[in-house]
Amino acid sequence: MTKSFGSDNHAGVHEAVLRMLSAANAGDAHGYGDDPLTRRVSQELCTRFGARGGAYLVFNGTGANVVGLSLLVRPFEAVICAESAHLNTDECGAPERLLGSKLLTVSTPDGKLTPDLVATRLDGRGDEHRAQPRAVCITQATELGTCYSLAELQALGEFCRAHELRLYIDGARLANAAAYLGCGLADLAAQADVLSFGGTKNGAVAAEAVIVMTADPGPVPFQRKQLLQLGSKMRFLAAQFTGLLDDETWLANATQANLMAQRLADGLRDIPGVTLCYPVQSNGVFAAMNPAFIEPLQREWGFYVWDEPRHVVRLMTAFDTTPADVDGLLASIREVSLSRV
Amino acid sequence: MTKSFGSDNHAGVHEAVLRMLSAANAGDAHGYGDDPLTRRVSQELCTRFGARGGAYLVFNGTGANVVGLSLLVRPFEAVICAESAHLNTDECGAPERLLGSKLLTVSTPDGKLTPDLVATRLDGRGDEHRAQPRAVCITQATELGTCYSLAELQALGEFCRAHELRLYIDGARLANAAAYLGCGLADLAAQADVLSFGGTKNGAVAAEAVIVMTADPGPVPFQRKQLLQLGSKMRFLAAQFTGLLDDETWLANATQANLMAQRLADGLRDIPGVTLCYPVQSNGVFAAMNPAFIEPLQREWGFYVWDEPRHVVRLMTAFDTTPADVDGLLASIREVSLSRV
Amino acid sequence: MTKSFGSDNHAGVHEAVLRMLSAANAGDAHGYGDDPLTRRVSQELCTRFGARGGAYLVFNGTGANVVGLSLLVRPFEAVICAESAHLNTDECGAPERLLGSKLLTVSTPDGKLTPDLVATRLDGRGDEHRAQPRAVCITQATELGTCYSLAELQALGEFCRAHELRLYIDGARLANAAAYLGCGLADLAAQADVLSFGGTKNGAVAAEAVIVMTADPGPVPFQRKQLLQLGSKMRFLAAQFTGLLDDETWLANATQANLMAQRLADGLRDIPGVTLCYPVQSNGVFAAMNPAFIEPLQREWGFYVWDEPRHVVRLMTAFDTTPADVDGLLASIREVSLSRV
Amino acid sequence: MTKSFGSDNHAGVHEAVLRMLSAANAGDAHGYGDDPLTRRVSQELCTRFGARGGAYLVFNGTGANVVGLSLLVRPFEAVICAESAHLNTDECGAPERLLGSKLLTVSTPDGKLTPDLVATRLDGRGDEHRAQPRAVCITQATELGTCYSLAELQALGEFCRAHELRLYIDGARLANAAAYLGCGLADLAAQADVLSFGGTKNGAVAAEAVIVMTADPGPVPFQRKQLLQLGSKMRFLAAQFTGLLDDETWLANATQANLMAQRLADGLRDIPGVTLCYPVQSNGVFAAMNPAFIEPLQREWGFYVWDEPRHVVRLMTAFDTTPADVDGLLASIREVSLSRV
Repeated sequence: MTKSFGSDNHAGVHEAVLRMLSAANAGDAHGYGDDPLTRRVSQELCTRFGARGGAYLVFNGTGANVVGLSLLVRPFEAVICAESAHLNTDECGAPERLLGSKLLTVSTPDGKLTPDLVATRLDGRGDEHRAQPRAVCITQATELGTCYSLAELQALGEFCRAHELRLYIDGARLANAAAYLGCGLADLAAQADVLSFGGTKNGAVAAEAVIVMTADPGPVPFQRKQLLQLGSKMRFLAAQFTGLLDDETWLANATQANLMAQRLADGLRDIPGVTLCYPVQSNGVFAAMNPAFIEPLQREWGFYVWDEPRHVVRLMTAFDTTPADVDGLLASIREVSLSRV
Repeated sequence: MTKSFGSDNHAGVHEAVLRMLSAANAGDAHGYGDDPLTRRVSQELCTRFGARGGAYLVFNGTGANVVGLSLLVRPFEAVICAESAHLNTDECGAPERLLGSKLLTVSTPDGKLTPDLVATRLDGRGDEHRAQPRAVCITQATELGTCYSLAELQALGEFCRAHELRLYIDGARLANAAAYLGCGLADLAAQADVLSFGGTKNGAVAAEAVIVMTADPGPVPFQRKQLLQLGSKMRFLAAQFTGLLDDETWLANATQANLMAQRLADGLRDIPGVTLCYPVQSNGVFAAMNPAFIEPLQREWGFYVWDEPRHVVRLMTAFDTTPADVDGLLASIREVSLSRV
Repeated sequence: MTKSFGSDNHAGVHEAVLRMLSAANAGDAHGYGDDPLTRRVSQELCTRFGARGGAYLVFNGTGANVVGLSLLVRPFEAVICAESAHLNTDECGAPERLLGSKLLTVSTPDGKLTPDLVATRLDGRGDEHRAQPRAVCITQATELGTCYSLAELQALGEFCRAHELRLYIDGARLANAAAYLGCGLADLAAQADVLSFGGTKNGAVAAEAVIVMTADPGPVPFQRKQLLQLGSKMRFLAAQFTGLLDDETWLANATQANLMAQRLADGLRDIPGVTLCYPVQSNGVFAAMNPAFIEPLQREWGFYVWDEPRHVVRLMTAFDTTPADVDGLLASIREVSLSRV
Repeated sequence: MTKSFGSDNHAGVHEAVLRMLSAANAGDAHGYGDDPLTRRVSQELCTRFGARGGAYLVFNGTGANVVGLSLLVRPFEAVICAESAHLNTDECGAPERLLGSKLLTVSTPDGKLTPDLVATRLDGRGDEHRAQPRAVCITQATELGTCYSLAELQALGEFCRAHELRLYIDGARLANAAAYLGCGLADLAAQADVLSFGGTKNGAVAAEAVIVMTADPGPVPFQRKQLLQLGSKMRFLAAQFTGLLDDETWLANATQANLMAQRLADGLRDIPGVTLCYPVQSNGVFAAMNPAFIEPLQREWGFYVWDEPRHVVRLMTAFDTTPADVDGLLASIREVSLSRV
């Protein structure tokens, strides 16, 4: 079977993660995070992120987002996010149901909020009839494969602080942003109050971290538990992160995925009938295609049509995507292009 | 370090589970359960349980309970459960917050509901001022180490059907009940509308199943997603179940834990200053102890005081508890008993 | 003090309503709606609307909307509404918090949804990651003073039925729509599954009705109670409706308000520097004004700026607005126009 | 028809309330509380209660309780209350659904919590698996017709402050407690963080106040709105309170109701087959009766059986209950007693 370009979660698990799961399976350990491995991983995450409030492991990205935002908003407070944000489009209304909060969405050209875009949703503050804007949620890297530069993050952080808004970063693909920007995790997190750090798409089985940057961790433990994200045998969530953090595997994984996306984008640029939609700044390539290409390609390759009317497909690479995988896909696209254009 | 008797989640993971995680890590697979392994496991669970509505994998026990009950109650409907139920005491109010439902609790002598006990909470049906009793939640095996017999289950099932109540079984330790009762999973599930089947305490990393017995699965997929319990790389949740189901490892694990609890209980019966509190019918032993015993024992052995005023300790065995572990604990208790009574 | 054009809730209460409150205050009556007056009003509302599921009195418009929609959606189901809908802009996120549901908003030219606009939000049905579109909420008359014609309602109703969508009508100003369209309440309600009928803006103190058109009333009583909208001395809510329904006062009130809005609109058409924004089809007039007009006018007259950047003001009439009130306001606007243009 | 002893909400409205509703109906007023009458009433309530955070008018008692408690607990925090509390038994699970919080109930002999009883529910603080006790809700006067003395309130207040608990008083019948205890509203409120003050059972149509004792009002306006308790024509809620507060009508009303309950209790003491259940300290009389009495009495008199198995009936008096009403009821009871004992 050909490599899937459908999602970075179609990939399996990095072998270091499996190795660490086995290594963690020695003897007994207290549950719910009161074990040495979880303590070590939490400490290490705090150090890497410059986080003062702690790092709390959870099961999945939607869980991380809801637990993270539960620290920042009350039900009558709203979260400003891009219309294309995972929080808005792919969480089946979990934020609304579980936080009770309204999402104030903004249409964006490239999945990225700016201070000006955020400003468009600040009406009605102090008016009891309106959900009160209180948090801004950005995704890094975004759902459209773009990254906020450090300067853009800085500008958003300053805007938030100036307007009594709290900044949350959905970091399901934060590793890819770090690899693209060539910066540290602390640099990416510096403006945030709370953020998530995704392990799953980076090679873990199912592990994400909620990173609390502020000194006061607030009620994280209770929110995590009540929101169904507290694992009992926590050492095995921690082990997945040791698999990624030790030897900087997380960065190597993200770098490989990003490189493969670049290789794919470079190849696509020359193919008639194919147009890249956004700058390729992580592991996702969005391309508008001659609609006649899509069905034949999908017979051989796994990927999703992102935007049906505009014939945009999403091509995702993963930590285990190889140059041969990319070149194979490119060859198929070229072939279908030659035969149909 | 001595074996922990603190919780069955202090144990590690059965090697078959780790083996299956590795085996599942071959190539790509669609996410969110649309993969062959998840389909196979779901099918197998349905067959074993006689379930017509499907089997849905989730991350943890609280998640399973909330997703399961979300299929049975609306916010103005209440869940009747034992005061000692995990649902009531150990889920940080997740059912109330996430379902919006009231729990109507009943004090029980042994953790078990009966039709008569359930009947005490059926007041006010049809009265709009009262939360409407709609589901009964029992735990099998219970939090106090007891099991419902098949006859008791049958009586509860009949009562529920006669009173328009739905029956949910929290099966975090259903395997232990099956081992104790010597019956099949379908026998245990026959009266339920929905139940959970716990993998984690049985040797998995973090995997539970929500089993829908009724033909109509209802909105399980949406509830699971919105309630934060949908894993992306689902095949690795499924793999944990293959580790437990293949070769009937789940039953061997539960049987071993139960046997060790029996061995422990048998040994405790003769020790002065120690009294068993409940019949030992799964992998939990509750013993009232001379309070002077407890602190010295806790210096060497891991276990929790369950009921401070009554000096009751909870001693849990796991799939990897050995006769030597039990005998070692018994020797310590005998020693402290001899020196203090 | 000059008459307020700020809101139809700046007006007081119609004298017939006060009279009926006094009349209802004779002797004792059972609470919570189990009294003859409430039964009579409920029956009369059902007859007028052709409602088979009953009419349930509540305290306010947001309450009516949330109770009404609670009958149509579950938390993972979404409500499609206009971006300008009261439900979206003026309920402080009550629908999200209390229903757990996402609102899928649509930008509209005139506050009115159409089948084509609704169709833009039907993506992702059956996909567990997406909140599932399940109800359409329209406002009649809309927040922008426009009305759906019966043909438009019919088209929406047919679209909803064809697409398994339920139709809810926020009828806070339904009386104004009936007056404008010259049709019966049953005509307005015919396409809806559930709707509200507003008394407050029509001359009541605080009384709205949730009208259930479908035969099965569902759990209205429990939802109304749990959602804080059940009054104990219900006869006094009912009395407000008798005040409005007897002698067709509701229609006279709405007609008067509409006529005054027309008179105002007619006068504004000739004034330089003033442009009407929407067809005037109920009791609201939206006018873009030379920004220099606004502050001087607001010194004398009460009204709100609706859209700051576009200098649009909202001028609302009420059942007790008189021709002299309107003419006075027009004179002021003409004066300011003459002096500033 | 005979006077109802079924509920104090079977009574009508005090004439002063109706008078003030008419008086308030002069000209226009801003909505949502931004009017002189609401400001005056809020100020007066604050002065009478010694409240620093404001007085906020709402529609009904369940609404007042939920809005009031929303200021004190987050979803993972629990409310300790008597098993017999209205909050627990008569609000259809509204606190659980709308606050997300668990109620920790305590069985009481007389509807009253004590520090010792509250202390029984403080287990598990700091344990993330347990809903965290955070507020204590008492009812004054209680659902069983008893009152907390000022000394009992003081003891509870001290206990709460010593244990980081916040005190909420459900004051649906606070007026009756003030009348019974002969103290001021400020005395009753002194220990509370937030309380409600009921108008409806005291002679209003539908009006309650949430009184915030602490200096920081917190997000009351937003919670009130999002929880569906914000009235638009607020002046008419305020007017109901002026009807009760002016001339101390509230106190006269409560005193009359209490006196009638005393008269009833005094009469019942001598009747064979009737036993009073609780001290009569407000306007409710609970009496265990020979079961043969009940049905014949209910043919003539309106009242409810409170506790079916124990044959306890609840007899409520209201502001408009007269000595003749009470004597008539007593005569009937004596007659049935003579004929059946």
